[in-house]
Amino acid sequence: MERMFVYGLDPGLSRCGYCVLDARGRDPHAVALGVFRTEPHLPVPERLAELLVDFRSLLAEFPPHSVAVERVLFQSNVRTAMGVGQASGVLMAESAARGVSVREYSPNEVKQAVTGDGAADKAQVQQMVQLLLRLPAPPRPADAADAAAIALTHVAVTAGVGAR
Amino acid sequence: MERMFVYGLDPGLSRCGYCVLDARGRDPHAVALGVFRTEPHLPVPERLAELLVDFRSLLAEFPPHSVAVERVLFQSNVRTAMGVGQASGVLMAESAARGVSVREYSPNEVKQAVTGDGAADKAQVQQMVQLLLRLPAPPRPADAADAAAIALTHVAVTAGVGAR
Repeated sequence: MERMFVYGLDPGLSRCGYCVLDARGRDPHAVALGVFRTEPHLPVPERLAELLVDFRSLLAEFPPHSVAVERVLFQSNVRTAMGVGQASGVLMAESAARGVSVREYSPNEVKQAVTGDGAADKAQVQQMVQLLLRLPAPPRPADAADAAAIALTHVAVTAGVGAR
Repeated sequence: MERMFVYGLDPGLSRCGYCVLDARGRDPHAVALGVFRTEPHLPVPERLAELLVDFRSLLAEFPPHSVAVERVLFQSNVRTAMGVGQASGVLMAESAARGVSVREYSPNEVKQAVTGDGAADKAQVQQMVQLLLRLPAPPRPADAADAAAIALTHVAVTAGVGAR
């Protein structure tokens, strides 16, 4: 059976969480899960280029069916918000320019889809990610778990059923 | 004489100003000047992809020696700031991933370099751009003039002399 790769991305410049699910079949499972890191001491353009090169490697290994990205909100730290915005721009433009469908989800949509509670805390989300993906422990660092939650949200929403 | 293309970019999602200067020789002149536009009613990933495709076309026509980008600040409208950040991320990552040197300049650095006054207003900057590039009128829209000012700043700074 052909595989269908669904991406979840939690954009960031220092740490960008990614998760690739194989979503064909009844139970999606993670085929790649981790974070892209860039060095805070490097100039921003170099860091963005490093992120882009890493992302392209992942795209080459697991050609995506669709990409889900956490929608960037301005409630958080203004200093880090710019890096998050730049990173999300890089990931979304590269994906969409390849003709891949890209969809954004708000943090509350992700919590709602994964735990059934739009106000769930991080620990609850991580536990559900561990359960749904049958992992031995919650993914670390948290950015990887967030990326997995975003990918699971996209699978749930596009399947028209809850992820639970 | 071989040409040396220096880019100035004023990032934005609705309108992204660009200017390509041929900076070889005594007097830089513009070989491309305008704005990339995307439709506000389209989803953000599609708009970013359109910007990326347009930017790649420009890069193919005028292979850059270096790229100067206006540094995104958070003093402005929060709703538009995210689009500006995402657009700047796309442009900087694409450039730097090709091995092109990318440098950011603050609005005040640009005003200082182009007019000699870090507190100059937009009209003064536009007049100096018109003068320095020997244009029949200030570039329109303003985003194109801003992009030209950024490119002129980079030429001035890297030449170690003022643009005037």
